Formats: sequence, structure tokens, C-alpha cells
Amino acid sequence: MVVEGVEVVCATHPDARFLLFGNEIRIAPLLERLPRAKAASSIRHTDDEVSDDAKPSAALRMARKSSMRLAIDSVAKGESDAMVSAGNTGALMAMSKFVLKTPPGIYRPAIAAILPSHEGDVVMLDVGANIDCDADNLIQFAVMGEVFARIVLGLEKPSIGLLNIGVEDLKGVEAVKEAASVLRESTLADCFFGFVEGDDIAKGTVDVVVTDGFAGNVAIKTAEGTVKMMVGTLKEVLGSSLRTKLGSLLAKPALDHFRRWIDPRRFNGAVFVGLNGITIKSHGGADAFGFAHALDVAIDMALNNFNEKIKEEFELIELKGEKKSPAAAI
Amino acid sequence: MVVEGVEVVCATHPDARFLLFGNEIRIAPLLERLPRAKAASSIRHTDDEVSDDAKPSAALRMARKSSMRLAIDSVAKGESDAMVSAGNTGALMAMSKFVLKTPPGIYRPAIAAILPSHEGDVVMLDVGANIDCDADNLIQFAVMGEVFARIVLGLEKPSIGLLNIGVEDLKGVEAVKEAASVLRESTLADCFFGFVEGDDIAKGTVDVVVTDGFAGNVAIKTAEGTVKMMVGTLKEVLGSSLRTKLGSLLAKPALDHFRRWIDPRRFNGAVFVGLNGITIKSHGGADAFGFAHALDVAIDMALNNFNEKIKEEFELIELKGEKKSPAAAI
Repeated sequence: MVVEGVEVVCATHPDARFLLFGNEIRIAPLLERLPRAKAASSIRHTDDEVSDDAKPSAALRMARKSSMRLAIDSVAKGESDAMVSAGNTGALMAMSKFVLKTPPGIYRPAIAAILPSHEGDVVMLDVGANIDCDADNLIQFAVMGEVFARIVLGLEKPSIGLLNIGVEDLKGVEAVKEAASVLRESTLADCFFGFVEGDDIAKGTVDVVVTDGFAGNVAIKTAEGTVKMMVGTLKEVLGSSLRTKLGSLLAKPALDHFRRWIDPRRFNGAVFVGLNGITIKSHGGADAFGFAHALDVAIDMALNNFNEKIKEEFELIELKGEKKSPAAAI
Repeated sequence: MVVEGVEVVCATHPDARFLLFGNEIRIAPLLERLPRAKAASSIRHTDDEVSDDAKPSAALRMARKSSMRLAIDSVAKGESDAMVSAGNTGALMAMSKFVLKTPPGIYRPAIAAILPSHEGDVVMLDVGANIDCDADNLIQFAVMGEVFARIVLGLEKPSIGLLNIGVEDLKGVEAVKEAASVLRESTLADCFFGFVEGDDIAKGTVDVVVTDGFAGNVAIKTAEGTVKMMVGTLKEVLGSSLRTKLGSLLAKPALDHFRRWIDPRRFNGAVFVGLNGITIKSHGGADAFGFAHALDVAIDMALNNFNEKIKEEFELIELKGEKKSPAAAI
């Protein structure tokens, strides 16, 4: 899947070069069948790998020669511009944090993911790195999400919403309320829409949905699961009789369009934002097309100096502020 | 919408009787056109009502003669077996808690909602009443959800899952972990599946999804929003050309089946569980069919002595336990 993904992405990015970290004995024969991928890649052999059930803390301590760690090290050394892994998310985050570290002013990295909406793609963060978030974390996610939407989604002036729940007085946790009041007074006030609810994600009410890693992970997985269930059921009902089969044959261009639009592979690639280096997590179950999409996002971010722009944004914001803490200074 | 919903439900429940709380001058003319609803209903006039933007605390203090409050009072007095409202959720919860109170052993009521899944309907709770939940709350939601699934969904032995996130070591908040370890040692251990993630809701991995009110509200609204977006886009693409229109005409029986299955009106009616009385919140935007569904759920729960069964379950569970706190005793 990884080497086939490289082959796919070579078509759109002929200048890209790839370092493949892993077992040469397994990788080399796969490359033999893929001429473009072979020409664009070098293998960095290692026997060690991080297993899917490894604890992040253990992986960090023990797996210093693993393919995952060596790939991150290569980003830290400046040898690679970005790294993409389909491995253990927790270990990937722990190692990336340890090796790449957060730039000044960013307390914690977040995981950003892209979702389809009625009004175009939406970025949501955090979708799983931080379970408990305070107002400062949420505000920093908002800043990083805004840059992400400009660079990866290509939007000129993205709008930002804070995920909340709409049960009137009970509304929202303290951190969410506090983050909202700071953002309303910040230089980002123009972009800040206010609170959004779960259904606003698919509506596309805002371009950037900011939330903690627990609610964000629940939201993204619930959306994915709902899409899968609906596509599966639609397939079942449309194949249920000769008449419906004929009908869906006629409607095929439309249904294909629908499937492409909702294709989860198009949204593969969760980006770790807020680190001195680009790390992207591809879904473990992704195919070559999905993995190629994650590589695409990595290349886009590297070509557009994503991390430099994040730093600039934070510096700009600090300059305009008056208070001391980077968050309060916005 | 309310009186039309009564008319709809009279067809399936000819023995049901309705007390309509509100402004007689507005309600009476509406009933004139609906003979069955008129015959089954009595109007309890009041001028006062709780507005949608009223604060729950203010509604509780001030609106003692409001239609909402009088309807809840009528449940407390035993005059009504259940109440259904399409009004202010926060006020409805605050008043219901204050008037009906929780039975012994239940610390906090929760809001339960039914969702479609690939394996049949699923109940999720809490979907908005309690933002911060400790392990005891989650355990009590699990017990109430199990009874709900038996009575409302008609399942013999429902399975229970605790909503969590799957980022390995970072996995889950303390309360979720603690609730899981208590449930694994409880008399509910046979029904307890363990942790589930957002995508398990639509997969139907379990019959009962237990979570706090923040994540639950985010999940249910995200699922609703995703369904709406997909149905809307499907409609658009199928109507895009003569050919696709013809195709969807042929596939109409299948598409209609699909629409019925996913119809949000079929899932209208969020139930407040854990109170000495049945209170159901109908969606503010529901139509007569949706409101009738909420009435249906109320009638089902009343006929099946839902609250008695919850109490029995808690007593049974306490009897089998050895420790003092109701939660630890499970």
C-alpha cells in the first residue's frame, strides 16, 4: 500500500523524492514492479518496527531504531521535508513530540483532519491528541486551524467555530466558553464565527471546527461511520431488484459523483499540527489511493512552508497583543 | 404540529387520552378540524409559556403557571402517565428534575436518544443533560440504557458499550476507564461489551452507547448532520440530468425505503431517563409525524411501566452487590 501510494503520487508530483524506512528485504521486491516509485525512492533499511499495540511510552523508550523513529529523525535533521506513517498513532504522536518539539508559543500539538461538508471541505482539530484541553489549547488550535485552512484547503479567509452543545443554560464547558471570549477580542475576531454544534460540521457552517481531542475524535468517527452505513445501505437497496438495478445503472454518473465526493480515501491523512516538522498519520486501513492522498497533503504542506506560516501567525498575533501569555495575547 | 401529532397517534392508540396545556384560544380552533384528536383531548388553559431563549433557572423560578410546568405537575400528580414537549430543553430538564426528582440510587437523569444503525436501532445516553460525568453517572446511565433498550427497542438482552476514543495510550478519560472496570465486575458484565468508538454507533456494534452529555450531544448532532448532508447531496445529483432522473424514478422504491429508514422523524423524541415520571422532548423543528413518534414512545414507556422497571433493576443490582454506594454495588 505504501509503495503503491508512492507510485500513484509520482504521477502528480514527478519531482518528489521518497525515503522508505523499513525492511529492505520486503520493500525492494515490491519496488521492482513499480518503475516510477523505484526511480523516486531510496530504501533506508531497519529491522525494527513499532507494533500497532505498543504503548507510546514504551515505543519512545525502546524503538529508537524503528522505521517510525528513523523517519521522524530524518525530518528533524532536515533530510526529509515531511513524514507519513500508517502506524501506531499514539507512538507516532509521542515520538513526533519528543523529537520535533513544539515551536515557541504552542503548548501542545493537535491532530487535524479534513471532512466533507455541504459547503466544501472542513478542517477539524483536535481529533485525538489531547483529551483535556484548556482555553489556551483551544485558542492555539484555532490559530493553527486557520493557517491550515488557508494552506491546505486554499481558502483566503477561513471562518472558525468552537464546537459546543446547544442545551441552553447547560451550554458548554468552561474552557470552551473562555476560549470564545478570548477569540472574540482577538485579531482573529473577524474570522471567529462563535459556537457551532455537531450538525454544523456537515453543513459547512464554518471552515475550521475547533474542539478537544475527545469530542473531536468522537465527531470524526461518528461522521465516518454514518457515511459508511449510508453508502452500504444505499448499495443494498439499489441492488435489491432488477428494476432498481436498472435505475441505478441509469443514475450511475450521479451515483459515481456522489461516491467520489464522499470517498473516505479523499480525506485520508490526519496531520499533526504544532510541531517543528510535518508528520502525517495515514489511516491503517487505507489503500494505495488513500495513502497517496496522505502523501499529497504532506507535499502540499512542505511546498507551502506550513510550519513557517504557523510561526509567523503566532508572532504576528503576539505582536498585536498586549498581555503576556501567548494565548491571552491574541 | 402538536394537535396534528395527536390526530396521527390516535389512529394507532385509540385508547390514549391527551391533556393539551396551553392557550385555549389558539388550541381549540385547531382541534375543530381534527375530529379524533378533539374527541381524545381536553385543553388545560394557561396564558403563560416558557420561551425558547429562557434560562432554565429563570423558567424554574418564574414560570410556575407555564404550559410546560403545568404538564410536568400533572405527571407528578399522577393525572398524566407521561408528558411530551417541543419546548426549551434546558427549562424542561430543570423543571422535570425539580418536580419529578430522581428515584433513590440515581444521582442524575440523562437524555436518551434513538439512532439508526446497520444492525437496527441503537440507544445513546446521555445526549446533553450532563456535561461532566463521573464513573458513577456513567454506570447509572448504562443500567438505565439497558432497561430502555429492553422496553423501547424490545431487545431481550441488549449489549452495552462505553464511548471512548481509540488513540492507544491516550485512550479515554479517567471516568470512562473507571466505569468500564466497575461494569466488568458487575451483574451487567454479560451485557457489557467494553469500549466503543464513534463509528460503532452507526455500525450497531452495541445496542446501548453510554457517554457523557457533551460527547453524546456532539455525536448525535454529527450523525444527524451527516445524514442530512448525504440525503441532500444525493437528491441533488439524482436530479442533475434527465438520465439520472429517469434512473432514480426506476430506483424509487429502493430510494423510498432508504429515506424511510433514515427518516429523522422516526427518531424524534429524546427521553429523560432517571426521573420519577416520563418526560419526552420532541425536536423543536419536528412535524406532526415526528411529534406523533415522540407521543408513541411516551405511550410505549407508560404502558410498559418504564420507571418501575428502572427502579427494579437498581434494586436488583444493589441486592447482588456488596459495597455501599449504589454505583460500586453493581
